[in-house]
This record gives sequence, C-alpha cells and structure tokens, in this order.
Amino acid sequence: MSKDNEEMVVTPWETRGKIDYDRLIQEFGTSRIDEKLLKRIYKITGEKHIMLERELFFSHRDIDWVLDEYEKGNKFVIYTGRGPSGGVHIGHMVPWIFTKWWQDKFDGTRLYFQLTNDEKFWFEPDLSIEKVRELTYENALDVIATGFEPENTYIIQDIEHIDLMYEIAIQVAKKITFSTARSVFGFENSMNIGGIFYPAIQAVPAFLHSWIYGKKTPCIIPCAIDQDPHWRTTRDVAEKLGYYKPASIQNKFLPGLQDASGKMSSSQEMSAVYTTDTPKKAKKKVMAAFTGGRDTADEQRKLGANPDICSVFKYYTFLFMPDDKELDNLEKQCRSGEILCGECKQILAPRMLEFLEKHQAAREEAKERIHEYSAARLRDDIRR
Amino acid sequence: MSKDNEEMVVTPWETRGKIDYDRLIQEFGTSRIDEKLLKRIYKITGEKHIMLERELFFSHRDIDWVLDEYEKGNKFVIYTGRGPSGGVHIGHMVPWIFTKWWQDKFDGTRLYFQLTNDEKFWFEPDLSIEKVRELTYENALDVIATGFEPENTYIIQDIEHIDLMYEIAIQVAKKITFSTARSVFGFENSMNIGGIFYPAIQAVPAFLHSWIYGKKTPCIIPCAIDQDPHWRTTRDVAEKLGYYKPASIQNKFLPGLQDASGKMSSSQEMSAVYTTDTPKKAKKKVMAAFTGGRDTADEQRKLGANPDICSVFKYYTFLFMPDDKELDNLEKQCRSGEILCGECKQILAPRMLEFLEKHQAAREEAKERIHEYSAARLRDDIRR
Repeated sequence: MSKDNEEMVVTPWETRGKIDYDRLIQEFGTSRIDEKLLKRIYKITGEKHIMLERELFFSHRDIDWVLDEYEKGNKFVIYTGRGPSGGVHIGHMVPWIFTKWWQDKFDGTRLYFQLTNDEKFWFEPDLSIEKVRELTYENALDVIATGFEPENTYIIQDIEHIDLMYEIAIQVAKKITFSTARSVFGFENSMNIGGIFYPAIQAVPAFLHSWIYGKKTPCIIPCAIDQDPHWRTTRDVAEKLGYYKPASIQNKFLPGLQDASGKMSSSQEMSAVYTTDTPKKAKKKVMAAFTGGRDTADEQRKLGANPDICSVFKYYTFLFMPDDKELDNLEKQCRSGEILCGECKQILAPRMLEFLEKHQAAREEAKERIHEYSAARLRDDIRR
Repeated sequence: MSKDNEEMVVTPWETRGKIDYDRLIQEFGTSRIDEKLLKRIYKITGEKHIMLERELFFSHRDIDWVLDEYEKGNKFVIYTGRGPSGGVHIGHMVPWIFTKWWQDKFDGTRLYFQLTNDEKFWFEPDLSIEKVRELTYENALDVIATGFEPENTYIIQDIEHIDLMYEIAIQVAKKITFSTARSVFGFENSMNIGGIFYPAIQAVPAFLHSWIYGKKTPCIIPCAIDQDPHWRTTRDVAEKLGYYKPASIQNKFLPGLQDASGKMSSSQEMSAVYTTDTPKKAKKKVMAAFTGGRDTADEQRKLGANPDICSVFKYYTFLFMPDDKELDNLEKQCRSGEILCGECKQILAPRMLEFLEKHQAAREEAKERIHEYSAARLRDDIRR
C-alpha cells in the first residue's frame, strides 16, 4: 500500500502517492467528461450508465469528435486490453463491463481486446514465457465470460498474433525516439530493450482495423487513466502514418478491498476477489474488507462512518448498487451510524457471490469457445 | 570516402577511420584464424579456400569448439544475413560464396539466411515499407543465385516471418538492458525504439534451430567483423536462455572499386558492380576503378605500381584469381611496372562479366523458386 504523502506518480507501470484526478486531467491534457458530452452519449445509447453517472469514467480524449463521425455514418471500433500478469479480479472487470455496454449500445461495434503478454513478460522480471502464456489463456476466459459477442470481438494475444501486428509496430517504432519514450514513460537505463520497444506494440490495435480493411476508421479506447502515456505517443504518430488519432474514455483506479485510496494491487491476495475464488473465499474477503467504519460499534452508532474512504461503498457505487435511491439511502445510513460495517458487508456479499457464480459458469463455457474470439481470424482479412 | 586519420569506429551501422584489423581482434576479443585452425578446417573440407588462405576471413570465435562438436557427431547450423537497404553488389556476395563452400563441404549443413528488412527500415530514415519489401525480394534472388541448395537453406525475411522469431526475440530482449545496448552499439538518445529493440531480432537465427527442434545445436556465423557487437550480446544471453553461444568466422571489409582502404559503400553508384548491372556498365566501372597506379604510363613503367592499395588487385585476390601462381605473377608484374593498370583491368573485366552473366541467369531462374527457400516452411516444424 502506498503512502498518501508521497509525490503522485502515474505511469502504465507504476502508481504512487495520493491520486489527484483533476491534476491528472491537467497534466495529461485530457478533457473532463461534462454534462453536454454525457447527454450526447445517452441520446445515442438510450440509457444512462452508472460508471458515467458516478464518474468512474471521468476523462476523455476526442469522444465528441468520434460521435460527430458516428452521426455522419462513420463507424468506430473499440480497443481495450489487459496485461496478463496474474489472475483477473472483479476490479479488472469493471471497465470491461463498461466496454461491453458501449459495444452493445453502439450497435455491435467491433472490439479489439489486446492481451499484452509480451509486455508483462518484459516488465515482470520473474515471469516466464510458460507462465505468461498460461495467464493469457486464463485471462482470455474472463474476457469472454464478460459477455462480448464473438462476431464483433477479436482477442489479440501479442506473442501468438505478432504476425498481425509487426508491420504496423515497426512503423510506429520508427517514429518514437528513445528520448521521447524515456520522457513519456519514465524509462531508466536499466530497462530492457523489449520494454523500450513495447509502446509500439500497444499502439497497434488502435490502427489495426484501418490497416487491415484499408479504410481510416476512428477508434475509442476505454481504459484506466494510467495508460494515457501510451495514447499520447500513439496519437502523436497516428497522422504521420495515415491514421486517425485514437480517442479514449478513461476511468479512475479501482480500489482494492483493503484500500479505498485508489489503486488495486493484484499482488495482495486478500485485497481482491478473483474471478476464480470459491464463494467461501470471496465472502471471507468481503467480510475482511477495509471500510470507513469506527473502532467500536458504539462509536459508529454515535458518530457515523465515512463512505468516502470505504472500499465496500466503492463496490456498491461502481458495480453492485445500480439503483440511485438505494445507494443514497445506504450512504445516509452509513454517515448517520444507522448501519454498521458488518451489516453493510452482508448486503454486498450475496451480490458479489451472485456475480461470481454467473461469471464462473460463463468462464467454464468460454473454454470451448476461445477460438471463436481469436484474432487469428483476422489473418484471412489481411490484404497483402 | 572516409579520412584515414579519423579515429577508427566500427559498429554494425558505421565504419570510420583507417581499419586496423589487429586492433579489432584485440578490442572485440575475437581470435585470429591461425595455421592450426586452418589445417583442421582443411582436413574436413578436403580442400583449401582462397578466402581463408588470403586472410579475407581472418578472425573467429569458437570455431575450434564447433569442430570438436562436429567430430563428435554433433552437427552445427550456419547463419548469415544481409540488410536489404539497396541492390546487391559483387562485394556483398563474397562472404556468401564462402558460406556456400562451407555449407557444401560440411556435408549439407543447414543455413539460415536472414534478410533484416526491419533493421533497414528502422536504420534508414527515408526507407519505406514498400521499398524495403521490394529490396528484400530482389536481394533474396541474389542469395538464391549464389547457389545454395533449397533443401538446406531457409531465407528468413524478418517482417514476413516475425511469427517464427518473436518468441525467441522477446526472451533475448528481456536480457539486454538499454545501458548494455547503448555501450555495445553506441545508440544515441535520438535512436528510434525499433532500432534499440533490433539486436534481439538479429540474435534469433542463432537459436532458431535449437528452439524449433528442441535440441541444443551449435551455430556458426560467417560475417563481416563489424557485426561482432551483435554476437557479443547474442553470446552473452545464449546460455541464460539454454542455448550454445554462437561461433563466428569473420571477414575483413571488401573494398569498393573507388577505394581500396576497406569499406565498400553501396551509396556510390560507380564504386561497385551490382548484380543487375549490364555488361556495358559493369565493364565501365571496372575500367574506372581506383588502382595503385602512377600518374603517367612512363612513370609506372619506371617505378611500378602498388597492389596493396589497389581495388582491382583486391578483386583478383578474393574472387577472380584463385590460382596462386597467376596472382603472384600479376603482383610481380604490377610492382615492377611490367603491366599497366589499363591492361590489368582488361584481364579483370571478362572474368567479372562471366561471373555476372552466370549470376544473372541464376537470378532469373530464382524468381520461380523463391518459395523453395522460404523460412515459411519452418512453420510446419514448430512444436507448440
């Protein structure tokens, strides 16, 4: 767990200090998602989404422009991804769930989902090829279990599908100097030469559709704000290579169950409910979660608790309590001391378990269907 | 043309100053090819080779060890390559001809021939993907026309065959830090991130056979001495990845026709006979070649000329005058002033043209057979 008084550092590979999202918007040069943009989105989707309403997705680049194009009949594609350095937990899935909504509501938009196993191999000193390959497979099951439709979804595994990507990657790489990479990503001289090359690989899916089908196509990237350095370099090279700059819609970090301050570390076993956890284990983790409660029940009844720093409340907010009235009510009960943390967790646990149960069933089914989602299908479409 | 008083710089991408081969052996830490090693090689090959006899190939790493293994029945593979940044000229082919002899004499050894089109794309600012692809094809024709047997020869085109290479490349890349790459290759901060990654790609064919067939196999790399930095990093990572360190046998630089001091620049059109030159053009280039002659015929008859700095004499030495007696005789005539440069060139020209004629016929035939040599055939052998 990081110390809040540390200087804020946010890169794709490191997050330190207390996160100031306003400062990130300013420093990264992104735009806040405002009321006007929300209205535009909802006009097309026909419904609101809690992750937008409750500002989990809070920042963007060029979404308004993509909507202009969309309304002119110029469809976009969606690109998101995951680095398979470990198992998937509920926190990882939150932006995927949003991505699925986005895909569905924008009439079956095509999704490129990148599993960056080369990245994780390069950035995790002790991760072997065998292990990262196993994790890639396991993570792919979770992606599929999220419910994406196979006909519009292409899961790219970098190592296995490099043949689909290398020609674009070498062109991106040629346009990024070490100086630029160092200043954008903070690379040290001890970084391995794979890690230094890697930003070229992460740029590829933003251009892949345009490259394969020979038609400049807008691309939206839903992702956590810490990936923004990648999109800065990607956007910087895009027009030089004849592509549109990718747009992005960016979410805040999801808290772990042991820490509501902003980051979810997958290295702390107890801090997250994994998609493969047994109900017993998942419930144990929920019941042990960090909250904004007081030291004693008496004190809490008297003074109330603080939902702003509570990991359980975050999970209600972003996933398990879509009903605004119910959430408002819970917040009031919490602040007033009307409800204690144990009781509150007893409400979360069954919702979490229901989610898990459904997900695990879908995950089992995914094992038979993994090829239906493979980016290998794109090989037939590539015009040489 | 470089100035001889400049400091000597030899990297895979830059050669400057007067080349001191003894100093290179010392600085790079390679071994001189000595009489004992020559005898061992000839014992197996059953015949001498002028490129060894006349010290064009002068330096090596671990060839004695590879011969030990060979005599124990542990066969090796050969790996060489070319960066397709332009047309192929006769100078480029000299080490290929040696490689073919080596392949033939060591009973049909397998050869991996890498065409590093990604490298050239990254290192030549103005080279486009389309152009480098065209050059790769044209260069492959020259490789094939050298006479390698298809059943033992696999031409790797980096961009097209990256799927065969990436899994090894990412493992190599993980073991090389930017610090190391910078100190070995002299990379500046302005180098693009593709160029920085590239040494990992050039390492791959040294390990490819072992990786595909799951059996540690020695590898010999015949190449110019300026590639040695690559083999230093390749050798450095080899054992960490479970492979043998590749051996190498290294040649001196071949002079251009305008410069016998050590480098052949393909950027000066007149300085080299290209494999696609017409007989007329080739002859013109030979007749215009730089020699060690005097300013006037009278002076030369009196004082003699200097074959040591003569590009024509170099071509006799390494390619067109395999007969020792004939070469000795020519040298005497040259030093004594008995033969003038024009007459001497008249002997070279028909030999060069005969070589070209045969090569161009083979090059035409190669167009129909390019797939027979493609490394794409390896896809069937890869054990996943």
